[in-house]
Amino acid sequence: MTLHPGSASTPGRTIGVIDLNADVGESFGRWQLGDDDALLPHLTSANVACGFHAGDPLTLRRTCALAVSLGVSIGAQIGYRDLAGFGRRFVDVPADELAADVLYQLGALDGIARAAGGRVAYVKPHGALYHAVSRHPDQAQAVVDAVVAYGGLPVLGLAGSVFLSAVADAGLEPVGEGFADRAYLPDGGLVPRSRAGAVLTDPVAVAGQAVELARSGAVRSLCVHGDSPGAPALASAVRMALEEAGLPVGAFATT
Amino acid sequence: MTLHPGSASTPGRTIGVIDLNADVGESFGRWQLGDDDALLPHLTSANVACGFHAGDPLTLRRTCALAVSLGVSIGAQIGYRDLAGFGRRFVDVPADELAADVLYQLGALDGIARAAGGRVAYVKPHGALYHAVSRHPDQAQAVVDAVVAYGGLPVLGLAGSVFLSAVADAGLEPVGEGFADRAYLPDGGLVPRSRAGAVLTDPVAVAGQAVELARSGAVRSLCVHGDSPGAPALASAVRMALEEAGLPVGAFATT
Amino acid sequence: MTLHPGSASTPGRTIGVIDLNADVGESFGRWQLGDDDALLPHLTSANVACGFHAGDPLTLRRTCALAVSLGVSIGAQIGYRDLAGFGRRFVDVPADELAADVLYQLGALDGIARAAGGRVAYVKPHGALYHAVSRHPDQAQAVVDAVVAYGGLPVLGLAGSVFLSAVADAGLEPVGEGFADRAYLPDGGLVPRSRAGAVLTDPVAVAGQAVELARSGAVRSLCVHGDSPGAPALASAVRMALEEAGLPVGAFATT
Amino acid sequence: MTLHPGSASTPGRTIGVIDLNADVGESFGRWQLGDDDALLPHLTSANVACGFHAGDPLTLRRTCALAVSLGVSIGAQIGYRDLAGFGRRFVDVPADELAADVLYQLGALDGIARAAGGRVAYVKPHGALYHAVSRHPDQAQAVVDAVVAYGGLPVLGLAGSVFLSAVADAGLEPVGEGFADRAYLPDGGLVPRSRAGAVLTDPVAVAGQAVELARSGAVRSLCVHGDSPGAPALASAVRMALEEAGLPVGAFATT
Repeated sequence: MTLHPGSASTPGRTIGVIDLNADVGESFGRWQLGDDDALLPHLTSANVACGFHAGDPLTLRRTCALAVSLGVSIGAQIGYRDLAGFGRRFVDVPADELAADVLYQLGALDGIARAAGGRVAYVKPHGALYHAVSRHPDQAQAVVDAVVAYGGLPVLGLAGSVFLSAVADAGLEPVGEGFADRAYLPDGGLVPRSRAGAVLTDPVAVAGQAVELARSGAVRSLCVHGDSPGAPALASAVRMALEEAGLPVGAFATT
Repeated sequence: MTLHPGSASTPGRTIGVIDLNADVGESFGRWQLGDDDALLPHLTSANVACGFHAGDPLTLRRTCALAVSLGVSIGAQIGYRDLAGFGRRFVDVPADELAADVLYQLGALDGIARAAGGRVAYVKPHGALYHAVSRHPDQAQAVVDAVVAYGGLPVLGLAGSVFLSAVADAGLEPVGEGFADRAYLPDGGLVPRSRAGAVLTDPVAVAGQAVELARSGAVRSLCVHGDSPGAPALASAVRMALEEAGLPVGAFATT
Repeated sequence: MTLHPGSASTPGRTIGVIDLNADVGESFGRWQLGDDDALLPHLTSANVACGFHAGDPLTLRRTCALAVSLGVSIGAQIGYRDLAGFGRRFVDVPADELAADVLYQLGALDGIARAAGGRVAYVKPHGALYHAVSRHPDQAQAVVDAVVAYGGLPVLGLAGSVFLSAVADAGLEPVGEGFADRAYLPDGGLVPRSRAGAVLTDPVAVAGQAVELARSGAVRSLCVHGDSPGAPALASAVRMALEEAGLPVGAFATT
Repeated sequence: MTLHPGSASTPGRTIGVIDLNADVGESFGRWQLGDDDALLPHLTSANVACGFHAGDPLTLRRTCALAVSLGVSIGAQIGYRDLAGFGRRFVDVPADELAADVLYQLGALDGIARAAGGRVAYVKPHGALYHAVSRHPDQAQAVVDAVVAYGGLPVLGLAGSVFLSAVADAGLEPVGEGFADRAYLPDGGLVPRSRAGAVLTDPVAVAGQAVELARSGAVRSLCVHGDSPGAPALASAVRMALEEAGLPVGAFATT
């Protein structure tokens, strides 16, 4: 896993810090998901849902307001138009439709973020789209094209992925992330969720892996899953461990 | 019907011209509605749907690109989240949800418009929301609050309506419109659609009423309904009649 | 509050028992709501959502299977097409559209119930539609017409309401319900939720009111709200109190 | 292309006639698609959309009423939950969710059909699901399982496809169809839509191919695409040609 070298000199980037991101704003109307109020204070970057797979507009507005008040960077957690599947089902969307869908979501969240005194500072594909951009070049390019058409923003994705290469090729800043709470295979891939031990839940183990990933230099951001009951405690443990290890925590993108 | 006097001195306004607006971008995926390619060249302001009651993102992107290429101003045609009802059914949305819904739609269309080299230049409520803002003060205020939170844009609505008063009270620019193809009652209201003769279809009659409304000074924009088969011909007839009557046609808001 | 007299002699009705109903099946995809597994064993009638305001098909299938295995009657909890508002926002749907919407929901849930070895045994309007049918005669008639067109089923609603009168006038069996956990006004209406004390949470008070309502004969079913964390415990307390008071608990409709 | 031999002796089947099917009921709210009133009289089987990819409930009700009045068989045109994509985009739905989705759609349309005096008489997957069931065994099995759970209905699909084999293996009646208006490859597959000449539009050519397919015995139903402007004329030409060729036209499934 290597980051695109050019990204190191991107203007506005904070060098030498490790970012901590998680998904938030994923409630929808009556349905609550995650404990954003408890989780957000531990993050440096908040991947806020954009309404297509999760996140009603009022939830997005409250989440953005909280992120702004806490100084947490806001990212657009873009996904497929699939509320019933929470964006976790691959949808074979043609490239021109997907690019327009991404633009729509980006603009919508950015409008809400600006009304809250902030801005969308980066983009992160969600769920099935997160994986699709590494396997379907057309969909990867559609996402990249949309971000370029929007004026350009850093893109958060799997460290070392072909998707981040496409991001860099387009002149955008790629930001590679690793998972503090997922087991890795020897080749750097993730242990599939279907296997035992794929998800780490012991805070000590999670914090330990977080420190290791941060020290390796292979990732600029660490992801903690936000929709589990223990997410706030886990994020807190990761952050404390990083700080105790002398690894400064900070957002990779600010506005 | 009187316009808010303060609106006359709003900076950036083009004085002494009459605007011609219609709804466009109302297709959704496989379902086409209206003939935007034929209608847009006759307009000065295009009310582009925002996806909640009509308008998939790719349609919005193409519509905005066409509007930009023709120099037609882009307005956000905001509505209720109601694809099945095309936004024509009143929904009793609480004010905080409605304000967030409006912000979301505004931002989404603006993101798409910017990617096309334009900007959203004004806001116009659609369908049942168009009427609700004159009857439900909470919903009217929610729309106004959202536009203010977005940074402020002119708002297009029924000339002389209490809604436009609320718009003006908030420091926004109200723009009153009349209907070239709807019969009026003696009190200035519209003949209900359920009555015979409510909708004018004869191009000569429509063009005549358009000229009369423009001369009266009571309206700054004329609306032609965009989803009927004859809409492009009607818009063309209105525009020619206005120009022949020495009434210059131009957008009330540009970006 | 008086029930329509004719309902007493409806064939198939179990006389002299009190029914206990609650809303279930209200999860949607990734979003869980309520603890149906814990709540269902205490009920005699399960108001299962039908997908328009809540309830994805897989949730409905699992809920119906559980209800069948427990011998709990399945009711169609019909509502407005409004996932974002959970069916709690009035929508001004024209009567012909609403009747078709109700038929669609009824058929969908019935298909799923039959595949689980059961049947939809009754109908109960949900949320804003529950209230609208007492205020908007057109919408009430649309619901009634749809149930008649489906072949006729008992309809559960507010005891003494004009809606249940319309139900009876159409030859359907009206079933009046009271709320074990809502405070009542002297005139038999509910204390609005906006007032302090509107919702009862003390199990002893709730159980006491349940026994009182059941003894009064004014209601044939008691509703416990299903989406609060304490719902299963409350339902259990109500059921035990009824049985201890010598009031047999049983479903009003079976298939 | 060979049909499953067992299907020939299925009880209730009308032997020796050729069926003519097309998609109808695909409008959604304000958006009209196809001219069902003109097309339906020429059909023997109407694939009625079920609301997930097209078809609002009122449209379905009107379409079913018309089909019943004309004596046209009603089929459930099931699809992915994808209004924006009209069901034409593959969605990687897990099998248990897809089976529940199919049951839900089947029940919904059947409820509406029964209210109109008819019944759903068969099932036909639509769009991307039509193709997916021949490539994704899990999705094929999910569709089959749902139809079995519903009590069993004939299933209409591509003649000779592995999907219809799975249908037959489950004890359901497979009905193979061919396309009157699509060009075939030498191996029996369809010329991809992306190639020139893939779609036949000349009524004489279409009618000729229809007669040839019917005579071959390889198909029991002929499909005419319903959403093109010329669909009614094409269907009429096909039907007349079949009758003139002495090939009796009739539904394969009646209720």
